[in-house]
Amino acid sequence: LNKRGNIDDEFALINQAISDFTSYHSLLVPNGDDAAIYKPTPGQGQIVCVDTMVEEIHFTKNTMTPFQIGYKSVAVNLSDIAAMGGTPRYFLVSIAVSPDWNAEEIIEIYQGMKSLADTWKIDLIGGDTVSSKKGLVVTVTVIGEVEERVKLLRSNAKPGDMLFITGDLGKSAAGLHYLLEPSNILSMESAPSTLIDAHQMPRPHIQEGQILAFFAEDGISLNDVSDGLASEASEIARSSHVSLVITKEQVPLDRELINYASKVGKDPFEWVMQGGEDFILVGTVPSECVQEVQELFKGKDCTFHVIGYVQEGNGEVFIKENGNLHRVHKQGFNHFSQLKE
Amino acid sequence: LNKRGNIDDEFALINQAISDFTSYHSLLVPNGDDAAIYKPTPGQGQIVCVDTMVEEIHFTKNTMTPFQIGYKSVAVNLSDIAAMGGTPRYFLVSIAVSPDWNAEEIIEIYQGMKSLADTWKIDLIGGDTVSSKKGLVVTVTVIGEVEERVKLLRSNAKPGDMLFITGDLGKSAAGLHYLLEPSNILSMESAPSTLIDAHQMPRPHIQEGQILAFFAEDGISLNDVSDGLASEASEIARSSHVSLVITKEQVPLDRELINYASKVGKDPFEWVMQGGEDFILVGTVPSECVQEVQELFKGKDCTFHVIGYVQEGNGEVFIKENGNLHRVHKQGFNHFSQLKE
Repeated sequence: LNKRGNIDDEFALINQAISDFTSYHSLLVPNGDDAAIYKPTPGQGQIVCVDTMVEEIHFTKNTMTPFQIGYKSVAVNLSDIAAMGGTPRYFLVSIAVSPDWNAEEIIEIYQGMKSLADTWKIDLIGGDTVSSKKGLVVTVTVIGEVEERVKLLRSNAKPGDMLFITGDLGKSAAGLHYLLEPSNILSMESAPSTLIDAHQMPRPHIQEGQILAFFAEDGISLNDVSDGLASEASEIARSSHVSLVITKEQVPLDRELINYASKVGKDPFEWVMQGGEDFILVGTVPSECVQEVQELFKGKDCTFHVIGYVQEGNGEVFIKENGNLHRVHKQGFNHFSQLKE
Repeated sequence: LNKRGNIDDEFALINQAISDFTSYHSLLVPNGDDAAIYKPTPGQGQIVCVDTMVEEIHFTKNTMTPFQIGYKSVAVNLSDIAAMGGTPRYFLVSIAVSPDWNAEEIIEIYQGMKSLADTWKIDLIGGDTVSSKKGLVVTVTVIGEVEERVKLLRSNAKPGDMLFITGDLGKSAAGLHYLLEPSNILSMESAPSTLIDAHQMPRPHIQEGQILAFFAEDGISLNDVSDGLASEASEIARSSHVSLVITKEQVPLDRELINYASKVGKDPFEWVMQGGEDFILVGTVPSECVQEVQELFKGKDCTFHVIGYVQEGNGEVFIKENGNLHRVHKQGFNHFSQLKE
């Protein structure tokens, strides 16, 4: 959107890209008026969440393509819907575009969004496209639905429950570590592709959340992993007034994560605990439900790993290694903090 | 959020400010988990809209205080709810904070939001607070409700309908004109305060929209004026496949607007037509309903001005002056374009 004279044309191109989105739900008032109006499904609670991705904070032009930026900006919100056991329905996009982004790139961003919108059959029902002086900022709001009885809260963990995860941890942080090494960018033939994928194109665990929603009455706590296992486990432990024990031997480590960590002299378990943006689910389930949950996950080709348990306590998180418990201190994931090391 | 070491403390202060918001609705899951979940009112359509305000595009530290930035970021969204005849219920705030903003200023922004939240009894149910390298970006999502039968669309205008507005136009653009003159900032004793207020603290016309919703079955078209009368009227004319005629003599001009325009050698009507951000409502109503609408507005102490009429046509907007019709060309309002003159 460089030159003033082109702004209108470029916005028109962007609006064209927006109008190419498929409509999966019939709305009372579709996108295009002052606001869209939709009819909620009777008996369903409305889940609403919003997340913002900022250039040079959450991504740079080196770490992600425009398509990936669009994809991920929707994916991180779908992950929040997943963590409530819900089904995503609608989304809105607000995008502030600085002069160093052109219309083609913005359209690619929307194409990345569209790929997820088509996968999950969600409708783009509104948004705002504005200019910024510096830095692209993408804010996505997602609305989902879930049966009113389903409350997969952080505060639901009880002593005796088992702690589980629905996928691999640490891969996104390792992928980002690779992407932030300029020398690595030049030798892409040895790129740890599953780690990079985990960072750039995280899959929201919506189906996993929906399986867990079946067990809502049994008391399931659930978080999506945006800030690393240490931080998410701590949130559950503190909200539930319990302690969580992570059994280190039970935590799966991806082979490529181990290889890459060894190559760059890092501890892969550090990325598991303190990394972030894995966008898998972590939670607790009563031990008597574990087998049934596991079978349902297996039937849907989904991953379910028990990695520890809940005990009485007051918000602590421990790692159990060789029979010994070590206290873990919560430490939030800071985007690109590696840059400052 | 200047120094890395302080970011956590400052975010904690901001989170404290957020937790000070009053809760007006009982939620299925309150703010604080991965996402809030609310129960929609049976029979009500859910209105959703989002708007972004960017530093140096929509405001600067010279044109607005932090309180006003927060207030206006919510107000512009409430205005969209008003334009659908709805009642606002919930909102979410995403804010990207650059290093030249401190926690006190961010808290003032939230206080500005809170003042409107308390007026309209809307609940803050989510958000995201992130860093940016440069420039504050505030994105607000508002959810409102309206009876499913109420569809106050831009496409509802019919030949013979009357064109109306619910307040004064041009004041916000004139107020911004004043605020952008650095010499004016120094002589605040002569400041045109109602113009400045109109720019900094626009009142969303929610009550006005709700009165108009009573007449939904009669066919009401409605827009809020974010981009100036020329642009909004053009949207209605084109969506409805009609022409709109604005009778210049019927358009009210605020006394302070006239005075300020004369002082700076501008045509106040230019601000009415091409200015923007007035956030009053403009629309059309069948002529047989005008008297009843007018009485309801009077009873609620609200303003209703007929300023023209609808005729057959194909998306044109005309101004009628001394019996002559002049075609108006749509021209969107560009924030701060005055800076570039």
